[in-house]
Amino acid sequence: MSCTHFGGLATWLFPFVAHCFLLPSFALPQVSFQRIVNADKEPGNWLTYSGNYQGHRFSSLAQITATNVARLKPIWVYQMRDPGKVESTPIVVDGVLYITEKPHVVTALDGRTGRPLWTYRRSTPPNARGCCGIPNRGLAILNDTLYLTTFDSHLVALDRHTGKQIWDVVVADYKLGYTMTAAPLAVKDKIIVGIAGGEYGIRGFLDAYDAQTGKRVWRFWTVPGPGEPGHETWEGESWKTGGAPTWVTGSYDPALNLIYWGTGNPAPDWNGDDREGDNLFSDCLLALDADTGKLRWHFQFTPHDVYDWDANQVPVLFDANVNGKPRKLVAQANRNAFYYVLDRVTGEFLSGTPYIKQTWAKGLDAKGRPIKLPNTEPSAEGTLVYPGLGGATNWYSPTYSPQTRLFYVLVRENHPQYFFKSTTNYHPGDLFEGGGGRDIAGLEPYGVVKALEATTGQQKWEFQLQAPAMAGLLSTAGGLVFGGSSEGYFYALDAMTGKPLWHFMAGAQIVTNPVSFLINNKQHVAITAGLSLFVFAID
Amino acid sequence: MSCTHFGGLATWLFPFVAHCFLLPSFALPQVSFQRIVNADKEPGNWLTYSGNYQGHRFSSLAQITATNVARLKPIWVYQMRDPGKVESTPIVVDGVLYITEKPHVVTALDGRTGRPLWTYRRSTPPNARGCCGIPNRGLAILNDTLYLTTFDSHLVALDRHTGKQIWDVVVADYKLGYTMTAAPLAVKDKIIVGIAGGEYGIRGFLDAYDAQTGKRVWRFWTVPGPGEPGHETWEGESWKTGGAPTWVTGSYDPALNLIYWGTGNPAPDWNGDDREGDNLFSDCLLALDADTGKLRWHFQFTPHDVYDWDANQVPVLFDANVNGKPRKLVAQANRNAFYYVLDRVTGEFLSGTPYIKQTWAKGLDAKGRPIKLPNTEPSAEGTLVYPGLGGATNWYSPTYSPQTRLFYVLVRENHPQYFFKSTTNYHPGDLFEGGGGRDIAGLEPYGVVKALEATTGQQKWEFQLQAPAMAGLLSTAGGLVFGGSSEGYFYALDAMTGKPLWHFMAGAQIVTNPVSFLINNKQHVAITAGLSLFVFAID
Repeated sequence: MSCTHFGGLATWLFPFVAHCFLLPSFALPQVSFQRIVNADKEPGNWLTYSGNYQGHRFSSLAQITATNVARLKPIWVYQMRDPGKVESTPIVVDGVLYITEKPHVVTALDGRTGRPLWTYRRSTPPNARGCCGIPNRGLAILNDTLYLTTFDSHLVALDRHTGKQIWDVVVADYKLGYTMTAAPLAVKDKIIVGIAGGEYGIRGFLDAYDAQTGKRVWRFWTVPGPGEPGHETWEGESWKTGGAPTWVTGSYDPALNLIYWGTGNPAPDWNGDDREGDNLFSDCLLALDADTGKLRWHFQFTPHDVYDWDANQVPVLFDANVNGKPRKLVAQANRNAFYYVLDRVTGEFLSGTPYIKQTWAKGLDAKGRPIKLPNTEPSAEGTLVYPGLGGATNWYSPTYSPQTRLFYVLVRENHPQYFFKSTTNYHPGDLFEGGGGRDIAGLEPYGVVKALEATTGQQKWEFQLQAPAMAGLLSTAGGLVFGGSSEGYFYALDAMTGKPLWHFMAGAQIVTNPVSFLINNKQHVAITAGLSLFVFAID
Repeated sequence: MSCTHFGGLATWLFPFVAHCFLLPSFALPQVSFQRIVNADKEPGNWLTYSGNYQGHRFSSLAQITATNVARLKPIWVYQMRDPGKVESTPIVVDGVLYITEKPHVVTALDGRTGRPLWTYRRSTPPNARGCCGIPNRGLAILNDTLYLTTFDSHLVALDRHTGKQIWDVVVADYKLGYTMTAAPLAVKDKIIVGIAGGEYGIRGFLDAYDAQTGKRVWRFWTVPGPGEPGHETWEGESWKTGGAPTWVTGSYDPALNLIYWGTGNPAPDWNGDDREGDNLFSDCLLALDADTGKLRWHFQFTPHDVYDWDANQVPVLFDANVNGKPRKLVAQANRNAFYYVLDRVTGEFLSGTPYIKQTWAKGLDAKGRPIKLPNTEPSAEGTLVYPGLGGATNWYSPTYSPQTRLFYVLVRENHPQYFFKSTTNYHPGDLFEGGGGRDIAGLEPYGVVKALEATTGQQKWEFQLQAPAMAGLLSTAGGLVFGGSSEGYFYALDAMTGKPLWHFMAGAQIVTNPVSFLINNKQHVAITAGLSLFVFAID
């Protein structure tokens, strides 16, 4: 950790103030829980992973519009030094961007200039392992503290003004395959953190820690133990290695005081022979009491999953009339190809609609349970199923615009796979998989941005990319949807029509989510492409 | 090597033509020697390392001016994948940028979009070693062929349209410490290449290869062997390990058919005890016949150098009146702190002026030979000398504007060092040094852009940076000077006054030289910062 030296063009020339020294003495307001609850009222900041607790990733800033977006241009760029896949969403507070770089570097950047204010570095044990690189999706902030999850499954608290470590607690044993990659969620006086490791036969959970002390307040096991409801959905001892990780940040309803968090695949993947049953609470949406971690309700999207269709996609909360009645809703565009709308008070299934081609289910029954088609299970020789194991969508964020009432999601089209099954053997800390997915030669999958009517999942428009992408979306009150492509394009679409309005070639794959905020009262948009964070504005 | 897949936003949207397939069938004109001779007449391209044979790094494009430079913005960015220090100058021909990435990756980029057209990759032997990282400063082009030097001292010819290797010849044995980092210079039907390794006790040379076949046409040894003129300036056998490398691209006068190329330090550095004499042709400017490699004249800046003050800085050719007489001149802002003006026909010394503080010489005599001050030699305990071993300037390019008749150079100020001396021992392939430089605690060196009257070296203005920098300069007919800072600022100054007009934070240290060119008849400027090539234009 160091306070970066403020070399640079002479200060008489460009009066960049040395915030490194000044910031701590500013009487900046703390980021209270109430501020996050009211995040929509201060769109100049980006206070939590999805922008607000409702998972909207919507900015009510409207300075950048369809009319002027053509003039959007990079204002500054920050290049990270450590190579790796950057999936991090910045937190932006009062003109400072807080980002994670790979693997455990946290940097505070002056939003006006891109100059680093401080940097925190923490090493990763070389024997920490995960399925899919060593990503980190960003920080949470509460009061004057930033919260970081680490790949070796610690939760770390840092002073917002200096980057100094306040505490560091062990969440789980990384040697057993537990890793942490999700941004934490700050709720009241607690920090909610999910766990990854569904390919390593972990037993999943969701945890809450005291924001001040780092002491664990509650844990909800996503694989119930003996005597707990749902335990009966696991054959024999299979619950002990049942997976159901919680590796993408969930949402929260302050009025109901419920946390909504998706869970991932049951372990082992692809071969469910030794875990007969529905395998609760894998592939579920959970509604948990924020104070106690007690389960209010759950909804399982893919019972007894043999496809690796984690249900970790960001749950999106909104209120709307359904069949003429006002409802509090939660929607999820699920990896299994269905778009679900549930009552978020009760968990009642309201509708489920395929939003891309799928060949595994005849449909959903009245309770939302899939009616599986025959001969769709993985097999030794491979069974062709739409979608492939990457799914219809994945961890990258969707966005919901209260203005258009559309749910925007990046979809992977034309990517069926042969699902195959093999034998499995659990060894603590090793990969615990029973098969996989094989691509079909000659097929060219591609990415599509889809706008769905939020209450029904009916498609309003689509915007086709040439290659599959892994970037999230941002909608704005300026009537725009921002997204990124695998070729390095950051682009803006018309939120009502999907018409492309602007793009910028950022030179490397975009595998993260855009955000928007104010600097000096001017709207900015930021995205990381490759190892570079680009900040855009209209001059 | 591969033809990059043209994924991307749907082609119905952005009609990026798949040049990868189309380019080879275009009847694009070849880059003939005559085109390079007349490079100033086609400022839309950047045909050779310094922009023209005269080493001007001047663009006669005038679309970007003091009036509109504030609107300059990044048009696209290309991010390199391999980490390392990027010192490469792009070659730009007919809308395509040819760049080297580290260590031996050559990429052709569509200037309109930044999309790669092809990539050539070559591995580096892990035991190839140099003093200062593994940089590569760029390519030469001649006809339809690109020329690349490699760190293991090969010269490689590539097909411009496909990146396919045509031939690969060994220039020197890298196991003896020979490396190659400079962009080659294409002259007539030959490719001129310099060598690095002054810290490894190589015997330096400058080579010419047949552009078609890769066969060596001539070699000029920069350390003369027995019986050759200059051999008497080396004590005993010291010539065999005398250094005098040629690691920055030189200049060329087509009318005189003379190549001007700087040479580096004698080896070993800092301890000259075993190499008594002037150590010709170390720290010299050489004028060589381009056809034969025969020496026409030489000028030695720092005889018997014990400071590591290589004279590899780009020689700048221009014509001007000196003392009322029109002269063909060559100027060099030398690492030893003097700005030299010579007659480039004869090598006659015309003037030498300190352009930063120096404490090692009382001045220069009538022939330009330094009059050394006593007690300025490196010592066991260290001897304080201005400038330090990094010198007044270094390999990064100066620029000369025929419009302002000013010579612009990036200078390192306030960086004296204690030079110390130690014993030396030559082992083939190992570092061969006899001391070094130690910084003075508490001093803060900084960078300064200086504008010197080209014929006299008198300072016209200066622009101060806060930290030392390692980036070259570009002047333009729009009345601008572009440069880069170590903090990542790319900036434009008024060429007449040095007034700062514009800057962009590119997010990482800039250690290369800017270029300018046309894409679709619009002026662009490009610079690499960190691992990202930024291309700028006014919308």
